[in-house]
Amino acid sequence: MTVNGSLPPSLQPLPSMLSCPDPLDPARIRHQVDAVLGAFIHHKKAAAREQGLPVEAPQALDDFLAAGGKRLRPLLCVLGWHTTGSSSGGGLAQAVQVGAALEMFHAFCLIHDDIMDHSDTRRGRPTVHRALAARHRAGHDAVLAKDIGTSAAILAGDLALLWSDELLRAPDTGLGPAQLEQVAPLIDLMRGEVLHGQYLDLISTGRPSPDTGPALAIIRYKTAKYTCERPLHIGAALAGADARFLDALSAFALPLGEAFQLRDDLLGVFGHQAETGKPTFDDLREGKHTVLISFALKAADDTQARLLRTLYGNARLDEDDTDTVRAVLRATGADQAVEHMITNRYEQALAALEGLSLPREVHHQLRSLADKTVWRTS
Amino acid sequence: MTVNGSLPPSLQPLPSMLSCPDPLDPARIRHQVDAVLGAFIHHKKAAAREQGLPVEAPQALDDFLAAGGKRLRPLLCVLGWHTTGSSSGGGLAQAVQVGAALEMFHAFCLIHDDIMDHSDTRRGRPTVHRALAARHRAGHDAVLAKDIGTSAAILAGDLALLWSDELLRAPDTGLGPAQLEQVAPLIDLMRGEVLHGQYLDLISTGRPSPDTGPALAIIRYKTAKYTCERPLHIGAALAGADARFLDALSAFALPLGEAFQLRDDLLGVFGHQAETGKPTFDDLREGKHTVLISFALKAADDTQARLLRTLYGNARLDEDDTDTVRAVLRATGADQAVEHMITNRYEQALAALEGLSLPREVHHQLRSLADKTVWRTS
Repeated sequence: MTVNGSLPPSLQPLPSMLSCPDPLDPARIRHQVDAVLGAFIHHKKAAAREQGLPVEAPQALDDFLAAGGKRLRPLLCVLGWHTTGSSSGGGLAQAVQVGAALEMFHAFCLIHDDIMDHSDTRRGRPTVHRALAARHRAGHDAVLAKDIGTSAAILAGDLALLWSDELLRAPDTGLGPAQLEQVAPLIDLMRGEVLHGQYLDLISTGRPSPDTGPALAIIRYKTAKYTCERPLHIGAALAGADARFLDALSAFALPLGEAFQLRDDLLGVFGHQAETGKPTFDDLREGKHTVLISFALKAADDTQARLLRTLYGNARLDEDDTDTVRAVLRATGADQAVEHMITNRYEQALAALEGLSLPREVHHQLRSLADKTVWRTS
Repeated sequence: MTVNGSLPPSLQPLPSMLSCPDPLDPARIRHQVDAVLGAFIHHKKAAAREQGLPVEAPQALDDFLAAGGKRLRPLLCVLGWHTTGSSSGGGLAQAVQVGAALEMFHAFCLIHDDIMDHSDTRRGRPTVHRALAARHRAGHDAVLAKDIGTSAAILAGDLALLWSDELLRAPDTGLGPAQLEQVAPLIDLMRGEVLHGQYLDLISTGRPSPDTGPALAIIRYKTAKYTCERPLHIGAALAGADARFLDALSAFALPLGEAFQLRDDLLGVFGHQAETGKPTFDDLREGKHTVLISFALKAADDTQARLLRTLYGNARLDEDDTDTVRAVLRATGADQAVEHMITNRYEQALAALEGLSLPREVHHQLRSLADKTVWRTS
């Protein structure tokens, strides 16, 4: 029995797309990655059902992935594969498969992150721990249901991490031993870096200071390397790129990744919930040590500093408080300083991109992706 | 620079032991596995320090592994390697390395498990989330410190999971591509099975019933397959064992694993804290759906059933209540019924062992390990 034989039509992989006229079209890459993820989870759900095991956790991952997301890491992985112009390693289908593995790993990161941040919504829907708590509300009191939801989400996140590994090594569609050897060290680096970034983030939370150093280290590990540099590296390494070429890609990817996160921080405070999919006070209630808050604390007068210290990271912060914090961030010029950093990093990334010798269409797509991630509103 | 060059003497691997006269001695295997784990973490801590990253999470894992544990899974993995009598796959050093990877994976399971169970102690010490909370007590209120401890332990567990993977594929000492292909499918199975077992456990907790079916499914997935069958399989597969031989090993390992968990359930209620390293009311407060409680509920009269429903899974249960529950478990004959199941499964395991054609010394060690795990008091 083949796996594909039992798939609904919407989940059937589209092998013809791999040889289509425009393999770099982001919508097409996203569709291919989602087809791999959909088929994988469909198979896992069927296997759990056959063994009489609960399908809740696989279903939660399915729902989470179906709710959207930018698919930025798979896109960069596949574009990374194209940067070399020709492949001396794994094929394009393998790059898509690795992209799917990166997206599954990202699901793990976000699910555990949302637990740690006590977030209620993500991508406009309840977070996984909230959704699973709601599922266990019947017959349990609210506190117990919340507790079960958190535990179940820890396990669902763990499962996503295991599955990201299985996607990499999937028989037939995954990487062969030689290809694994090319990318496994980079994947290990990436996974360690993002966990270190999350740890730094965690132990700095609730302790914002005028020192931008720790905030920049968090951005570097948690986002710039994890979201941009490593996916691009992994795709390029799969196509046989050498260490020197990877370094050249870093010169583009790292400033782009920093700009991406700085934009995220601004949107977290000044963005519109309808566009970002999460309430704007989430970030303020968490009290993350961001570059934005460190700039504000540095420039604040006594009154402003007192307001920030009282409201920032306050779990009971309401809409009015949110407006107050926003006003202080504007009055201190912190928002403009961050905008300035974004522009600066965007320009650095573009300059590095100009210095790279890339196929014309790859250059175009990386430029377009830089524009979209840096100047987005959601 | 070699990694070993920077190690303190106590962490230096002992390669000479790999060719010593008694490679099956459990104490020796444990020492070898611990040397691999110690060297790995030492290297990770040094790398974090060099990059200016926090060493807290690596240190927490180091402390956790140093606090003891039975090392049952590495032992079974190495003994599994010896079952074939001769190796057509990876060598003994690789079996030790895989054993270390299994122990690191187990650290991940226990750390996340302790968070989900709200356990305060493990191996006679504070659990990882409690230890990390204590670390962040300074300058934070108790609720926030507890919260940071939990989040940090989620990340420390995640790190252990990533590192179990890295141990498998470690350059020089880890598995080569061909060996990885032999054992990766079994490791994937094992990892999925234990997560399914934990999920079953989680959603049954607080809802014990006279139905032993779910309790047996939890035992099978969470312990019998994860703790006994798969480690033995993985070691044997590394030495080139075929599917038929693995099935024959299952006939020994599965009943042994069930007996091991049933003993664990009895010790959780009737054991002595000084020996088990955790308070006896922990299991009762959690309200796990065990075979023991299902037997008791089945045999209980109305008064006994009411007592069990009131006290079992009650987070405020005290020493007196613990004695009451113990008395009911005894009066209903549930403890004796579980003892009977243990004996029954122990005998099944021994009969299967007799049927296996194994080197004499391997047979002896597996028999000895069965005796120790089934008739233990800690």
